[in-house]
Amino acid sequence: MTVGPQPQSPADGATMLAEIREQPAVLRRLLEHRADYAAVAAEARRRDVHLVRMVGHGSSDNAASYGVYAFGLLPGWTALRDSISLSVYYGARVDLASSCVVALSQSGQTPDVVEYVQRARERGAFTIAVTNEPASALADAAEATLPLAAGAEHAVAATKTYTAQLAALALLAGHAAGRGAEVEAGVARTAQLLEELLPALERRLHEIAVTLAFVGRMFVIGRGPEFATAREISLKLLETCRVAAEPLTATDLVHGPVAAIDGLFPVWTIASADESLPSVSAAAARAREAGATLLASGTAAGEIAGAAHYLPVPQPPLPLLTPLLSVAPGQLLAWALAQAKGLDPDRPAGLSKVTLAL
Amino acid sequence: MTVGPQPQSPADGATMLAEIREQPAVLRRLLEHRADYAAVAAEARRRDVHLVRMVGHGSSDNAASYGVYAFGLLPGWTALRDSISLSVYYGARVDLASSCVVALSQSGQTPDVVEYVQRARERGAFTIAVTNEPASALADAAEATLPLAAGAEHAVAATKTYTAQLAALALLAGHAAGRGAEVEAGVARTAQLLEELLPALERRLHEIAVTLAFVGRMFVIGRGPEFATAREISLKLLETCRVAAEPLTATDLVHGPVAAIDGLFPVWTIASADESLPSVSAAAARAREAGATLLASGTAAGEIAGAAHYLPVPQPPLPLLTPLLSVAPGQLLAWALAQAKGLDPDRPAGLSKVTLAL
Repeated sequence: MTVGPQPQSPADGATMLAEIREQPAVLRRLLEHRADYAAVAAEARRRDVHLVRMVGHGSSDNAASYGVYAFGLLPGWTALRDSISLSVYYGARVDLASSCVVALSQSGQTPDVVEYVQRARERGAFTIAVTNEPASALADAAEATLPLAAGAEHAVAATKTYTAQLAALALLAGHAAGRGAEVEAGVARTAQLLEELLPALERRLHEIAVTLAFVGRMFVIGRGPEFATAREISLKLLETCRVAAEPLTATDLVHGPVAAIDGLFPVWTIASADESLPSVSAAAARAREAGATLLASGTAAGEIAGAAHYLPVPQPPLPLLTPLLSVAPGQLLAWALAQAKGLDPDRPAGLSKVTLAL
Repeated sequence: MTVGPQPQSPADGATMLAEIREQPAVLRRLLEHRADYAAVAAEARRRDVHLVRMVGHGSSDNAASYGVYAFGLLPGWTALRDSISLSVYYGARVDLASSCVVALSQSGQTPDVVEYVQRARERGAFTIAVTNEPASALADAAEATLPLAAGAEHAVAATKTYTAQLAALALLAGHAAGRGAEVEAGVARTAQLLEELLPALERRLHEIAVTLAFVGRMFVIGRGPEFATAREISLKLLETCRVAAEPLTATDLVHGPVAAIDGLFPVWTIASADESLPSVSAAAARAREAGATLLASGTAAGEIAGAAHYLPVPQPPLPLLTPLLSVAPGQLLAWALAQAKGLDPDRPAGLSKVTLAL
């Protein structure tokens, strides 16, 4: 008689793991296209763009959360995750003449993103497709196309595409700010740091996953640029591990959800060595008081008191690039926890790689 | 020997319930201030504002999700939930000269919202405080103040303030579009519909809550203007019932989280009789296939196939005003489910009415 999950073959999750490991190489490949990023940023400046409308679903929308900070902190542009339904479903007629659209799609096939871009281009926006597939409906619809160069992604749960999207947004914002060379050097150094970090992290997350095998829900806290990381880690846990993981800013947490916490509700805290640290530390302390088991990651993981597990990442040369590293513990936890729960991270229930419907 | 939660006294949750019941009266009081809304909208038009930056936390931030659609569909203005941390913590220097700030705070005391408004005003934005407390730090900081007139809110979980915020955003957007009288008449009619709806809904949610007493996690799906409702219902369930409820758009759901669904994971679907209905219905069908128990609410609840519970709300004269009604089933479920779980909805663990720290 066997009880509980069956042992998995060593091949389970092999695709997702290979793509996680490939990320440093992906960042280096992206840098080969630096001239494209510089040219598109120059065109956006020539058109006097001051509002960036980002669109995408799933991991691409999480990357857009990072774009809010990349554009806000580098060229000082307002960037928003635009509502696709407002224009595509409800037909709102918003003035787009001084807007730039950055459409994020791994496959370049997401129907409502393509439709959003077609409408925005007709109405005067400077439209940019950022995609793995330069021969795609999205690339056809947009005025400019920037390659992600992540290579074909086979795992359903996106990993290397997400990291490439972050780097792409940082490069575009950096060139828009006249700081392209600095961001390029930062991405190159970050690729090296990620390469050094991944092997030890793989072993560590495998150990931690076993202790979390019965977790059904979790909060993931991150602030500023790391809110994107909180969203992306939550999505990985939802889609590969059936954990009801919810991303929150530190302030969100204390404005209500903290009341839901008990001892069965771990809280993952992403702590950065920046201006957001006091509020993130205070929110983690509130969660701990409420009985939560804490996981602490990020460049300032060690500043979170009383965590059960610490998963620090090194500090890249530009603080804005930290999210390229801090997502890795979450990707690896999703991969390891799926297996600890007897699930195959390469084949989540009910998902396919490209969502064509809706 | 007693096992499980102790019986609660009938007084438990009385404050929250009284405030839910007060909502029609709150909407009528707000309309007494219609001239203030018209004047502030006229000033925004005079300054040629085309970008609305909304800030707030918790329920106020959920109301801002509604504002994206109110401003987008009525005057055709781009409205965004701005990042408070970008300017307050990270010091980003974004051009604000052609922006209007709408700061949402029940108490008018939220420190980082006040600081955001001070900075934005110094940098040329037209700043508007929307608050229950016209004598507050927020009202002092802003150039214009619009009263919510919801009256003192005593329950920790906001209900009447949220509904008043939705109506306030609709009024401001309506006047900005030159359609103020139409929106005013719509809010007046909606107040009447809500008054007729609430008594039957109270009884119905009390019955449904018993069947959900062991639920620990839930997805709440809404699209377009109803995404605000999905966020607000999720927050009520989190803060009063310890349910890990996560708001998703229909498209979000099928881009990953659907993989987490099993028979213990109910999905609340808010269906509107509008352009979003096909995608919301399709997402609900995917959730049902994955084994979820469905709750269907909204004006088109009946269009969701196979739901275990139907909670329709009537159609107000303006479709944009539907969220003023469709939040009520969620408020009442939170109130009733808390009691079914032996929790006091008036006193959630670890929360206070005004969050001063962080």
